[in-house]
Formats: sequence, C-alpha cells, structure tokens
Amino acid sequence: MAGNSFGTLFRITTYGESHGAGIGVVIDGCPSGLVLDNELITTDLQRRKPGQSKITTQRKEEEAYKILSGVFEGKTTGTPISIFIPNKDQRSKDYAHIKDSFRPSHADYTYTEKYGNRDYRGGGRSSARETAARVAAGAIAKMLLAHYGINIQAYVSQVGPIKLDKEKIDLNITESNIIRCPNKEVAKEMITYIEQIRKEGDTVGGIVSCVISNSKKGLGDPVFDKLHADLGKAMLSINAVKGFEYGSGFDAVLMKGSEHNDLFTKDQEGNIVTTSNHSGGIQGGISNGMEIHFRVAFKPVATVVKKQDSINKMGQAEIISGKGRHDPCVVPRAVPIVEAMAALVMADHLLRDKTVRL
Amino acid sequence: MAGNSFGTLFRITTYGESHGAGIGVVIDGCPSGLVLDNELITTDLQRRKPGQSKITTQRKEEEAYKILSGVFEGKTTGTPISIFIPNKDQRSKDYAHIKDSFRPSHADYTYTEKYGNRDYRGGGRSSARETAARVAAGAIAKMLLAHYGINIQAYVSQVGPIKLDKEKIDLNITESNIIRCPNKEVAKEMITYIEQIRKEGDTVGGIVSCVISNSKKGLGDPVFDKLHADLGKAMLSINAVKGFEYGSGFDAVLMKGSEHNDLFTKDQEGNIVTTSNHSGGIQGGISNGMEIHFRVAFKPVATVVKKQDSINKMGQAEIISGKGRHDPCVVPRAVPIVEAMAALVMADHLLRDKTVRL
Amino acid sequence: MAGNSFGTLFRITTYGESHGAGIGVVIDGCPSGLVLDNELITTDLQRRKPGQSKITTQRKEEEAYKILSGVFEGKTTGTPISIFIPNKDQRSKDYAHIKDSFRPSHADYTYTEKYGNRDYRGGGRSSARETAARVAAGAIAKMLLAHYGINIQAYVSQVGPIKLDKEKIDLNITESNIIRCPNKEVAKEMITYIEQIRKEGDTVGGIVSCVISNSKKGLGDPVFDKLHADLGKAMLSINAVKGFEYGSGFDAVLMKGSEHNDLFTKDQEGNIVTTSNHSGGIQGGISNGMEIHFRVAFKPVATVVKKQDSINKMGQAEIISGKGRHDPCVVPRAVPIVEAMAALVMADHLLRDKTVRL
Amino acid sequence: MAGNSFGTLFRITTYGESHGAGIGVVIDGCPSGLVLDNELITTDLQRRKPGQSKITTQRKEEEAYKILSGVFEGKTTGTPISIFIPNKDQRSKDYAHIKDSFRPSHADYTYTEKYGNRDYRGGGRSSARETAARVAAGAIAKMLLAHYGINIQAYVSQVGPIKLDKEKIDLNITESNIIRCPNKEVAKEMITYIEQIRKEGDTVGGIVSCVISNSKKGLGDPVFDKLHADLGKAMLSINAVKGFEYGSGFDAVLMKGSEHNDLFTKDQEGNIVTTSNHSGGIQGGISNGMEIHFRVAFKPVATVVKKQDSINKMGQAEIISGKGRHDPCVVPRAVPIVEAMAALVMADHLLRDKTVRL
Repeated sequence: MAGNSFGTLFRITTYGESHGAGIGVVIDGCPSGLVLDNELITTDLQRRKPGQSKITTQRKEEEAYKILSGVFEGKTTGTPISIFIPNKDQRSKDYAHIKDSFRPSHADYTYTEKYGNRDYRGGGRSSARETAARVAAGAIAKMLLAHYGINIQAYVSQVGPIKLDKEKIDLNITESNIIRCPNKEVAKEMITYIEQIRKEGDTVGGIVSCVISNSKKGLGDPVFDKLHADLGKAMLSINAVKGFEYGSGFDAVLMKGSEHNDLFTKDQEGNIVTTSNHSGGIQGGISNGMEIHFRVAFKPVATVVKKQDSINKMGQAEIISGKGRHDPCVVPRAVPIVEAMAALVMADHLLRDKTVRL
Repeated sequence: MAGNSFGTLFRITTYGESHGAGIGVVIDGCPSGLVLDNELITTDLQRRKPGQSKITTQRKEEEAYKILSGVFEGKTTGTPISIFIPNKDQRSKDYAHIKDSFRPSHADYTYTEKYGNRDYRGGGRSSARETAARVAAGAIAKMLLAHYGINIQAYVSQVGPIKLDKEKIDLNITESNIIRCPNKEVAKEMITYIEQIRKEGDTVGGIVSCVISNSKKGLGDPVFDKLHADLGKAMLSINAVKGFEYGSGFDAVLMKGSEHNDLFTKDQEGNIVTTSNHSGGIQGGISNGMEIHFRVAFKPVATVVKKQDSINKMGQAEIISGKGRHDPCVVPRAVPIVEAMAALVMADHLLRDKTVRL
Repeated sequence: MAGNSFGTLFRITTYGESHGAGIGVVIDGCPSGLVLDNELITTDLQRRKPGQSKITTQRKEEEAYKILSGVFEGKTTGTPISIFIPNKDQRSKDYAHIKDSFRPSHADYTYTEKYGNRDYRGGGRSSARETAARVAAGAIAKMLLAHYGINIQAYVSQVGPIKLDKEKIDLNITESNIIRCPNKEVAKEMITYIEQIRKEGDTVGGIVSCVISNSKKGLGDPVFDKLHADLGKAMLSINAVKGFEYGSGFDAVLMKGSEHNDLFTKDQEGNIVTTSNHSGGIQGGISNGMEIHFRVAFKPVATVVKKQDSINKMGQAEIISGKGRHDPCVVPRAVPIVEAMAALVMADHLLRDKTVRL
Repeated sequence: MAGNSFGTLFRITTYGESHGAGIGVVIDGCPSGLVLDNELITTDLQRRKPGQSKITTQRKEEEAYKILSGVFEGKTTGTPISIFIPNKDQRSKDYAHIKDSFRPSHADYTYTEKYGNRDYRGGGRSSARETAARVAAGAIAKMLLAHYGINIQAYVSQVGPIKLDKEKIDLNITESNIIRCPNKEVAKEMITYIEQIRKEGDTVGGIVSCVISNSKKGLGDPVFDKLHADLGKAMLSINAVKGFEYGSGFDAVLMKGSEHNDLFTKDQEGNIVTTSNHSGGIQGGISNGMEIHFRVAFKPVATVVKKQDSINKMGQAEIISGKGRHDPCVVPRAVPIVEAMAALVMADHLLRDKTVRL
C-alpha cells in the first residue's frame, strides 16, 4: 500500500534507498510566490549529514541536492517541487556480509517478512538516509512558516543519563556545539559521554526537544488530526524514535487538575495568554498561541561493534558484529530531522486552516 | 479542512456533538462476510459509558446504538457500516453558564479562535463523548482482528503516583474491578486514591497500557506509516492524552545499544522470536510477531470544582468553577477507547498488508 | 476498499441501502458560519423523489431528512454535518422473487462476484436511492457556492430521439414541467414520448445538460484534478450514466483548431472574456470565468416489463420480467442529482483554491 | 492544494515542467516481486515521443529515462519507484515571444489567474510533456496487469470526419502505421487528411478508443469509485480531452431498455457471459469480465499557425501566431497516454479488490 507520503495539503512523497541512485522528495501543495532560500536547504542538509563531527559516523555523504521542478526565477510556482539528492560514497561491498543476516533490532527481518525480499545494502528503504529527503522538504516548509512568522527550533536535551535543566537553556547557542545542546557545560558532558560510549563499541539513546514559537492561533483539528497527534505521528515516523510527549507529557500523570490547568489572563498588549503552559501551546488539539513544545525519545543505535547472537535468512544461528560506519548516538543529527518533520506538520495545518471559515 | 476521518483502507468518519441529536460513525472498507457480534459493541460502549461506577462521572448516557447500514442477515456486506448513538439525558441548561466562558485547559478558547463560533453545550464536538463513536467502530475492527486471531487488551497501569509493577499483571482480571487494573491490590489503592481526589474537588492523571498479542508479522509500513507512528497518532487523538511510548519508550534513552537490542533466536516450534522485547513488537515500523505493547499518558481532567481565574469571550476576567458532572480520573473509561483506536490501526494495516506482494 | 467518500476538502461520505433503516451522508469540511437553508434541501430532495409525477416511478419515498450534527443556532459550525433519510414504504417482499436472480444490466451479478454476497432488496447499495444522500449534501454545497455567487442549473436536453435546440432554452421555466426541459413545446413532446414508452413496458435514455454561471476564475488543478476531470468523474459516478462531455465535447473532433479556439477579448467592463466558449469555461483544467457547461448521457433504465433471458445465482437459465415500480426514463429525476454532484465538485475546488497562494 | 497524485493504492505523483531540468514520477504502492520490463517503458515512451513521424511535431525529445529507486536486482521491492526523464532540446528562447501573451485556448490565462505567476516556457506544468511521466508509470502498471493476464490496447478510431468502422478493426496492426489506426485503408485516409490540415497551418481533433481484455471480474466500486468513473476521470485529465463514453456511450440515449440490456448466458466453458456488451464490460461500476471498451474525444491542438486575436498580461490586444513545433493532430501520440492512464486505473482497482473480502 502506498505509504510514502506525508501531509494532506502540504504533502510530501519521498523515495530512494541508501545505496541506489539517490533519494528524493516531491513536495506537492506549496503555495506559489514563495521566495526560495537555497542556503537554508544546504544548511539543514549539512546539519543532518553523517561525518560532520567526531561524535557522528565517519561515513561521508555529500548532500549536493538538485531542484528538478516547481521553482522559476527564484520563486515557487505552485507546482510540485522535486528535490533529488544523489547517493555518493556508496560502499555497497560493506554490506555484502549482511546480505542474508537479520541484524538485531534493525528492520532486516520484518522487512523481509513483509515484502518477501529486501535491498540489503545499508538498510535500503529503511535506512535513516531517507530522512535527508525529509530535511530538504522541511526546509521548504520552514520558508513558508517564516513567511507567517512561525519559527521552529529543536535541540538535544538528554544523552543517556545526562539531562539538561530547563532553566539553563539558551537557544542561540544550540548550533555552537557538535551535540546541539543549548548549554555549553552540559554539551561538554554529553560529548565526553558519547566519546566514551563509542570507545566501548556501544551506542546510547537521547532526547530531542523542540519549541515552536509565534505559532498562529487556531492551527490543528479538534478530532483525529489534533495538532499534537500529527506532530506525534511525524516524530514517531523518524527512525529510532520510541516515545513522544508534549507540554507536561508523562509528568501530567502525577499532577492534579487544579495544578495542571493553564489559567487564562491578558498580557500587557491585551492578548489572551495563559499563566502557565502545561498544555504545550495546544488545547483540544488546536494551537492557542503560546509556545508549542514537545520531546522525542530516541533509542540507542542498533548497530554496535560488540558481538551479538542472531538468526539468518536460512534460519541458522550466527554471530553479528557491526562493521559499518555508524553513529554512537543519533540525537545531534536528529535535531534537524525533528525540526523538518515539525515544519511539515505546521505548514500543512497552516494551509488547512485557510479553509475552515467562509 | 475535512479532519474527521481516520484510517486509509479500514476508514472511519465520526460526527456529532455532545448535545445535538446524537453521535455516529461510518465505517468504510470493512470486508464483506464478517459475522457481526452485537454484544461486543454493547459491552465496549458500556465500558466507556459515564456513570458506570462511583469513580466516574454520574452523568448518565444510555448507549443504545443503532446500525443503520452495511449489515445484512447478520453479516457485513462490504458496504459502509453506519452506527448511530442518540444523545440522551441532555441537560443543555447545565452549560448555559459557560456560554461565554473560556474554561481553563478546555478547547473553548482555541475552538472559538479557529471557527469563529462554538457549540458551547458540553464541549460540542470537542467533547469526549465523540469517543463513543470510536468505541463502536473499534468493536467492528476487533471482530475483524479476531477473525485473524489478533487480540487487544488495555488496562490502567498508573493513577497519579500509584504504579502497577509489570510482574504483578493478570490480564484476566482487568475487568473485575472498576479501575480496570489487572492487579487486585493495586486496583484498590487506585480507587481509594481517586475517591480522595474527588472529595478534594480535584482530578488526577494516569496511564493506560495496551498489549496486542498474536499480531501478524509484517504489519506496518517502513517510512511514514510505521505501525507505531499510526498507533501513536491514534492515541494522541484521544482527549486528554499527553504522551505515547512503545516498547522501551522513554526508558530507552538511558540504555546502551548492546542492552537494548533484541536478539533473534528460535522458539521450540522453530519460529524466529526475540529473547527480549524492547522493540515492543515493532522493528523498522513493521510488526515482528512479538507482543506489541505501548503506554499512553492522560492528564488530569480539566474540569475541577475548585475556583479558577479565567477570561471570557468578551475579554473580561471571570472566576470559573466546574458544575457539570465530570470524572475525577479519566483512565478507567479510557481503557476501551485505547483498545478501540488500537484496533482501528491494526485493522487498517491488516488490510493494507494484503496489497504489498504480487 | 473504502470507496464511499467523494471530494477532498469539501468531502462527503454516504452510506445506506435501499431497504435498510435508511440512507445518509456525512459532510466533512464545510466552513463554519454558513446559514443553513433547510428549504433548499427539502426542495432538492423532492425534485429527486420517486413518484413525483406520472412519468416517474409510482414508488413513494418520503424524504423526511434529519440533520444529526454540525449545525447550531441555524449556522454550520465547521464540524461534520450528518444528514439521515429514513427509508419508508419498504416493500422488501417485492424483491423476494429476485433474491437469486441476476437481472440483465443491473449490478446483481458483478456485486455478487465482488463481495461474495449481496443485499438483494431493491439493489441494496447499488440502488439509485443512494443518490438522495448526494442530493442532500449537494444542497449544502449549493449554499456555500451561493455565498460566493456561483449558481448551478441542470435540465433535460434530450429524451430518446427528441432533442432540445440550444437556441430555444429558457432556464427560468425548467422546473415548470415534469420533464424539467427549459422549453415548453419540447417538454410536451418528451412527456408524450415517455408515456408511450411506458405503455410498451419499455424504457428510454436521455441527456441532462448543466450550466454553472458566475464561476470564479482559477478553480481546478492543472494536472490530474482538472476541473472537468473531477466533474466528469462526479457525473460518471451517477447510476445509469454512460458518457460525459464539456464545452464542444465530442463535436470538437470535427473542428479545426482555428475554429475551435476561443479568442480573448475584453467586455464592456474591461474584463477579459472569450468571444466563443468551446472551452466550456475551462482551459487547462482551470475555470476561466466563462459559463461552465457540460452534458451527461443516461442509458435507458435496465428494469423493463418485457421478458428477458438471464442466468441465476445457481447458474440456471431463467426468464426475468420487471415487477417493481420503476421509471420509464431516468432523466427528469437525474436533474437534481447532476446539480448536486456538480455543486460538490465546485465547492471542493473553491476551498482548494484558497490554499494555492501565499 | 496538492493535486499531482493519481490513484489510491497504486498511486503516482508526477512533477516537472516542459523546460526545467526534467519531468518525473514516483509510483507508490507497486507490489514487490514484479519483474521489470525496461523495454516496455522505452517502447511506450517512444510511442508518445514528439517527432516520431511526419504527422507529429518535429520537436525532438529524447526520452532517456532513469529509474532512481524501487527496483533491486531486476525486481520491484515494494518501495516507491522513481523515474526521471531529463529535458533535452530545450529551446526556451522559442517561448520568449509568448512571455506575456495569453494564447487562445491554452492554459496561459487561467494558470496566471490561479497562481499569480507562470513558467511561460512551453506551457510549463500545463505542457503535455507531463504525460511522458504518466506513460512511464503506466508501463509499470501494465507489467502488473500482465502478471494477472489483463491487456490494454488503444487505437485511433476517428480523425476529423474520417471514422473507423467497428467491423474493420485488426488490433494486431495498430502499431504498423504512424496514425495508430487498426485498419490500413482508413489509416492512409487519416494520414492524408492530417497532412492537408498541417499545410493549412491548422489542426484537427480525433477519437482514441481503448479495449481492456481479460479484465478480472469484480474490479471497481459500486458508488463513487465506479470503474468507469475512475477511467473517465483518468481520460479527462489528459490534455485536450473533451469527452468520454464507455460501452454504448452517448448512443445509449437513443436506445430502449429492451434493446440496451445485455442478457446473461453461458459460454461453451460454462462461464457466465452476456450476449451483447452495451455495458462496455462494466455493470454497476464493477467489471463483469466482458471486454471493457471506451472512447475519448480530443479537441484540435490549440496552437495554430494562423493569426488569432488575443489579449496579453497587460490587458492589451495583440495578434498571436504559433511559431513553436506542434502537432497537427494529437491522437496518434495520445494512444499510449490513454493506455497508460487506463493501466493506472486498472492496477489501482486490482489492488483495491484484494481487500474487500475476508
């Protein structure tokens, strides 16, 4: 069944495997007249790129994207925007040894069960490389949102046991360190921790937090397509994500209604605001104008150098050990992916909201 | 924008407000030839029904559903199944006092911002009453899943600070107590706690866990429509939900890859299974045949008897205090809703999976 | 597969069989704030109703519709509008004799082949009764279009060999005669012809033409969802329709480009118009502001009193003869159905057009 | 609004303009395990290609397609198949003179009204070049259909006044002449006629007929997604199409029910068949196993060498005369496009049909 599209009005379709000709995305529904910011696409692809620092995989992907359609004289035309990113540095041979293997906690086994075959080179369609296409499309979505003043910023708030205290956040410095943590000291700790994990031949999980500021009021639908439900699906569709929470999240379980409720008041300009924001900017599935914030849990990368028991395609026991070039912790590179998926959801609901009143 | 449908092949559309003629659902895409189990619909609606016990709201809704189409001589015909549930016990006057109010952490304000008007009687379309339609549709989905041997069971695993230990679960007794906790002692504690909260005029949050057993292998799509992404959206679309996690969930953050990976082995019948199940039965977005399990966080109900500051439609400050008949804790009644939404997702992916191979 | 919805942003889902509890429609995506004109729904349902005149079936359906949701204090709220039309005058026994029969050129055989069963009472889901739900929804779409000044009028332009000359049309008198022909003399001829056909125990085909005036410019999409492609699908989805053409239609085949082209000029108010309208108001799939016009061919009704050879479910030869109460010619009752489907397409594209520019 | 996708389960998304980098298509939902027939793609693209004969445009497009994803070791993998066709021979300068012009009966005016801008080079997105992407995707659909024994053949049945008699058809010779008419003598007449029209600097319309043989029974949905409704939309979405009819089509208007009905009988193998086929192989929207046949009317190409009055973007009167390289008659090149769109509809319904029974 066709399952490679995301969004309804601002809709993307991605394609491509990690070791074929390349990956790409078609963005359908982007309004005409938007000035294209090529640098933003480049920057976001660089932020996602493997090999960008000592704590990411050393595998190098050159992200030379091409815009194949939908842009004329520097502006979107309202027709589908097609972006292609060729695969480079394809060492298919690196994967010959896993041709018949089911790597633990990868998609090898389930994919084979579903389709009866699989492109075993680097995970094929299940490779996280697919997310580069999302990042490119997300950059276009960010341009649309920026036109309406909406801004999205994600950052790393936890790596293994090392947590970032909410009070110590300076979003201006997120990109100043390779872990993308908006606090210098915590960033250092995280980096040191990851380097140690890497030396052990192991991997570790983490959390990416995201803030959407200056969100318009009224975005989101009241029933199935609640804004946070669509954000949740978007995040859970990213490789290695295990959980999603927004506003108070799982902590809400411990709170009483009288504590949890966000009371309405007016700010100095007379706008209706809330005195707290346990709602995370969304009430009844619809944005209320306060900051939208949510958190995304990532599991440790499944490829580890340590030896592990497994079963192969022929049903035989075998020992597996990661030989590829992989990340010890996925979260620094996940930051732009979280932003991209959030931007796609917001752009979609921005357009949807244009049709609900006479 | 049309946002009242859920699912692609097994697709439901719901309608109705808490205080109009009634609510309903149209189920489109249910295969023909399925024997209808009317009792299951009745039972599940009763489990969701308000006023079912001392720890739920005393508001009474009589859930006398009618099947308007799609069933002939006791079997589904392949045409849309329409189920209507009339509203009874409609005390619209109960809501006259909130006509112009924006109740804290309800959808009153955002809904008005979005649509420019609102049916203020009992939350209108944003009322949790809409979920009765989902439960009815979910019962049909459960029948379809049962035909393929798939079983879904949800239960309450936490109320405020009271947690259920994983080792102490007996799913056979979930329905034997009014809190729907699969452990007698913990159930008692939870009930006592909720009664105390109610006396305080307050409310409290909780967690509903869900287990899907005997799931087929190969359900779910590898990219956007990952099985857990669709389950996540389904859960996050339920009123009052703040977070979703599956398998190891947020705990995965603290784990190392070598601990987290689920190793493949063979069971006594020679089937490929995993020795642990941090994957929660889903790898790369596709079911692997192990038990699927996930957890859903509910916030405390927003309507509290305690007085709270707010702003009304005219922009004036006002004091709000809940007078309606509301639940002190939503989780016992949320159990069948979680099951229903899970069933809808599984039924949809079951049908989708029929089309991926020649 | 779910196939009972139509439209993307202004989206309807219908359900119901000719002899169950009733039929209905859920309209999702209608903007909030639209004043509901109940009389229009009633009028259009009456225009489609069987038994309305001597040249239609004498079967009586009382079209007492109920609005179950989506309207509050006389206006749409932006939530799904559910309309239910109960079945009355259900003489299921009339159909006992065709329980195992495959009536020639009905859906009995194909439906059984597809679903493995069938609700044989009156055609079940394949009955033209389903179109009453479309007419009710179409009335809502007409209200939305009227808000923007768009008007839709259909009429009978041919019955068997009796054609209406384009020059002799007065759309003000369409509803003044039972055949719905906008010319008194031709109407009389058509009626006489149909009465004769009825006496023969036979049926005859016809053409319904439709004009959409004051259409906004810019409606329709340039590729797959061309305005006329969506209108075509809408019309072809009506029971008994065999063909669709717009503007010059099949006559264009005989024309040369230099004759067929519609030259641009300016009218007295300085608006860009075309000097001819072979385009039928649509160029490149997008409306150009000129009158949209198209024609829909209906086959003769399949139920005839004359005896016909057939095969039954058991594979045995049998003789079939229509005993039900059926129309000798479907076109007079098809007029409001054509209008309704046209309105649904136009309403959908009106909403879609709101999202294509910044 | 996103409108560049077609189909539900076998779903394509196209992109690209006539004078950008190229055009392309992403096919989502093609089952895994299908052996790819590259030659069929090449052949069908050649059949659609401009410049293939003296009666088509002399503009040359080299259709060197690339498959970017979805195929591994010669078979489809179940992931999206992306096909890209680079633009060659791009004489953008040819179009500088029409930058501000609204060519009569082209999409220039409506496109500008809708989007507020336009890529004026060769029609941009509205160019028939987009159909090359459909033809490539249609070839994949044909491979899937061939696996199930379903075969699609289109041919030219009318050019201007020159009609092909139904009795004189030999589908084996369709491709033996440049007009693609399955009768040698009529082909010659058509070619002579078109050459004469070309000399006049004019263009002419025509009809493409299509036959689908060995169609499975049970394809199509009974309500909105009737098989012929989806075929009709598919055809009407092709550039220059003005009408669609299936089976008896517009001729049904003149027939009586007793003549039109297709009586059921058994053939020599005991299969249920009909003695005539006015239904065109589809009853109640669902295929009955007989040959499916339909006809598509094409208008004369809008670009003529003759001078024509028009209005430009600035609202000024101007004279327009075609200078580009265009076809005198579109039908020979439309044959593979009609087949491709038919194949896409059939492939979609083939997959949809897999989900309607337990």
